[in-house]
Amino acid sequence: MMRTRPLKVALLGCGVVGSEVARIMTTHAEDLAARVGAPVELAGVAVRRPSKVREGIDPSLITTDATALVKRGDIDVVVEVIGGIEPARSLITTAFEHGASVVSANKALLAQDGAALHAAAEEHGRDLYYEAAVAGAIPLIRPLRESLAGDKINRVMGIVNGTTNFILDKMDTTGAGYQEALDEATALGYAEADPTADVEGFDAAAKAAILAGIAFHSRVRLDDVYREGMTEVTAADFASAKQMGCTIKLLAICERAADGESVTARVHPAMIPLSHPLASVRGAYNAVFVEADAAGQLMFYGPGAGGSPTASAVLGDLVAVCRNKLAESTGPGESAYAQLPVSPMGEVVTRYHISLDVADKPGVLAQVATVFAEHGVSIDTVRQQGKDGEASLVVVTHRASDASLSGTVEALRNLDTVRGVASIMRVEGE
Amino acid sequence: MMRTRPLKVALLGCGVVGSEVARIMTTHAEDLAARVGAPVELAGVAVRRPSKVREGIDPSLITTDATALVKRGDIDVVVEVIGGIEPARSLITTAFEHGASVVSANKALLAQDGAALHAAAEEHGRDLYYEAAVAGAIPLIRPLRESLAGDKINRVMGIVNGTTNFILDKMDTTGAGYQEALDEATALGYAEADPTADVEGFDAAAKAAILAGIAFHSRVRLDDVYREGMTEVTAADFASAKQMGCTIKLLAICERAADGESVTARVHPAMIPLSHPLASVRGAYNAVFVEADAAGQLMFYGPGAGGSPTASAVLGDLVAVCRNKLAESTGPGESAYAQLPVSPMGEVVTRYHISLDVADKPGVLAQVATVFAEHGVSIDTVRQQGKDGEASLVVVTHRASDASLSGTVEALRNLDTVRGVASIMRVEGE
Ligand SMILES: NC(=O)c1ccc[n+]([C@@H]2O[C@H](COP(=O)([O-])OP(=O)(O)OC[C@H]3O[C@@H](n4cnc5c(N)ncnc54)[C@H](OP(=O)(O)O)[C@@H]3O)[C@@H](O)[C@H]2O)c1
Ligand SMILES: NC(=O)c1ccc[n+]([C@@H]2O[C@H](COP(=O)([O-])OP(=O)(O)OC[C@H]3O[C@@H](n4cnc5c(N)ncnc54)[C@H](OP(=O)(O)O)[C@@H]3O)[C@@H](O)[C@H]2O)c1
Repeated sequence: MMRTRPLKVALLGCGVVGSEVARIMTTHAEDLAARVGAPVELAGVAVRRPSKVREGIDPSLITTDATALVKRGDIDVVVEVIGGIEPARSLITTAFEHGASVVSANKALLAQDGAALHAAAEEHGRDLYYEAAVAGAIPLIRPLRESLAGDKINRVMGIVNGTTNFILDKMDTTGAGYQEALDEATALGYAEADPTADVEGFDAAAKAAILAGIAFHSRVRLDDVYREGMTEVTAADFASAKQMGCTIKLLAICERAADGESVTARVHPAMIPLSHPLASVRGAYNAVFVEADAAGQLMFYGPGAGGSPTASAVLGDLVAVCRNKLAESTGPGESAYAQLPVSPMGEVVTRYHISLDVADKPGVLAQVATVFAEHGVSIDTVRQQGKDGEASLVVVTHRASDASLSGTVEALRNLDTVRGVASIMRVEGE
Repeated sequence: MMRTRPLKVALLGCGVVGSEVARIMTTHAEDLAARVGAPVELAGVAVRRPSKVREGIDPSLITTDATALVKRGDIDVVVEVIGGIEPARSLITTAFEHGASVVSANKALLAQDGAALHAAAEEHGRDLYYEAAVAGAIPLIRPLRESLAGDKINRVMGIVNGTTNFILDKMDTTGAGYQEALDEATALGYAEADPTADVEGFDAAAKAAILAGIAFHSRVRLDDVYREGMTEVTAADFASAKQMGCTIKLLAICERAADGESVTARVHPAMIPLSHPLASVRGAYNAVFVEADAAGQLMFYGPGAGGSPTASAVLGDLVAVCRNKLAESTGPGESAYAQLPVSPMGEVVTRYHISLDVADKPGVLAQVATVFAEHGVSIDTVRQQGKDGEASLVVVTHRASDASLSGTVEALRNLDTVRGVASIMRVEGE
């Protein structure tokens, strides 16, 4: 069955991920050939800095002209691990036009322009695979798109950013504050010098958009995803969470509405019970919990980033795309037939944990309870703590829409007896 | 893109799994059509008892002549959910001969005759998919075969039998003995009237054979799998495990030898640290831990059995096979190119927990330690407990081959001062 003409691969980018892709392609060449059914050859490597020494890579393969590389015409598969929107986007579409299928790890691009890229792939009869774009090495896109293709997915909820999970885990286990935990993450190389994309939830939101689109066979763009970072989470929040038997995680949550007619996608910190499988995901690990009609509850767990785990996912896609090339077919493309609209955050229904600073005098609880009732938000438990004329009220609600909760909070702020709203945190996973 | 001629599916068996497959095919017909790109039609249902009322199934589809159904010639996909070796095996090969691809949930058959069935599929250019055969709804075969196709898998270790996990979990949490926990599992429908296949590890061994074959690109048959049931696990074993910070699980373990030149596959009860992700898999849930060179440690978790989870996996395969049919291609078939031999149990290297009843007199520990040393088994910890002239010694070893350990235990039994070997349990997951 082995064909002798090799399949030619152009590698765009040779950084953290790309260098590992190149290394594995070289060291595991025989295995890859056996699994694909033909040799797989590295035919060119595009980088920005040509003079940088790149161990194990034939210098004659290096080029700074990525466009010329993808236009060569003899390239079977382009692996895009440059990142960012441009030139990655143009290079991918050029690759499709010149006969190549594409494997990418680029969540930012896929979340923003996935539909257009899928359309371009389909127009030219090419594959576009991107398992590595979500949760690194964890097989997630293939299970959602293929293994669960006969099922109805109702919810995807996961820890999809390792940096923020590392920070929150540190805060949880050591009692550290946000800044202290971030500093440690930076020192250990878990956080980048500019951690904005991680801690503000942009990275997780891109992954949520990709997962929601696949899970619900609809189009969900980055702009559709509600996003709240985790920079405001405090040691006090963790203390409150512990009192409830919970911990705090930054979650990406994609849900089908109860009536099945719309979906929501959001990223925010949330309390989850310690008994929930996601609560015990430690350090920089990722995990994604999937609920489907027939399958029930599934969880996928593993390293969410890092050069070699991400390269593993890229190479799995590369093998699949190479096999498709040999069979002169393509794998499953975008499936957006359901066309479910994305509802705004106000329509999300969940539970809430609210800490209020209130005056320590009779009748305050009754006033506060009235405000919740007026906004249709039903209270599950209230805890009152008084100290020197000041008091705090911790309210945990039953399920209510985000809009009702926002209305409640606004009205609470207007009460004379409410000195301030110390924190509002969603409670998930029950 | 939608084709109007439907793809025709023959369902062989309409029991726990088959009835759910039929139900979902009917209720989700539109979604399946959209995902496949053509309508998917139930064209016939083979059963043993034709007169049984089968809700939601057109009685005119029912037949007792499964062979005639698969020979009809207009069938695109045969779904085999009868179970057992015959007639399932003959029906599957007949299906291939008559133009159909096959989706099966039959672990017993795949573990015994997987190679021959794959060869028959390939000879006729058909697909043979069986995600449902291992760990029910949990996507496992597709991730191993496709997502990790560019990686080198070194170990697959899992809880792949829900019945035994339910029993062991009960014993762990309530202190119940084996029989009591089994009785409860039977009463709750988690164990069959004859639980042999589950509690003696036959079911898990079949799954281990399938997983090892896929993970190591080699042929591993049921007979190659070392198998020890869990009927001898006692409440005392759980007490010992707790003292070590462990619990006991029935594990299926497939490993590549350290030199990479052979593999092993085994099923037996083992102690694992409470901190290991598999330790917290409760009730009838399944979970499989995978270690690969580049990906690192991954875990897949979910319901391992039950009509609807298993049907979810069957339908995922059905969608994939239907798409392949439309594309006039086939998916990845058997990959056994590595041809790694399966080593016998004696070559497995792991740690051991051994409880000995010994005479309570001076010098016993020295004697016992000498026996371990003579067999090259290095001791990690020893705990002595004395009571009324009798004493027990609990030895935990460093890593040693199973053959060395067996030699040690035989020699220990010959010592005058050793009254008996109360238990031997492997220790995994460190
Ligand atoms: N790192 C992870 O753990 C991880 C995990 C999942 C997904 N991803 C995704 O993988 C992709 C790559 O990430 P990375 O961490 O490997 O990034 P990186 O280390 O910054 O590497 C980027 C590479 O692209 C090259 N490059 C930049 N601009 C270029 C241009 N205009 N033309 C040609 N080459 C150019 C760089 O060249 P020089 O070497 O000359 O600078 C470098 O080799 C991103 O989409 C990222 O989101 C990364
Ligand atoms: N149940 C699970 O949770 C589960 C999980 C994973 C995998 N599986 C696998 O799925 C397969 C089916 O399991 P199941 O639990 O659904 O079994 P089941 O409930 O016993 O159903 C078996 C079906 O096959 C039919 N049948 C038996 N002999 C037949 C014959 N000679 N010709 C035609 N039909 C025949 C039976 O007909 P009648 O209805 O007339 O008796 C019945 O409909 C097995 O391979 C099993 O290992 C099951």
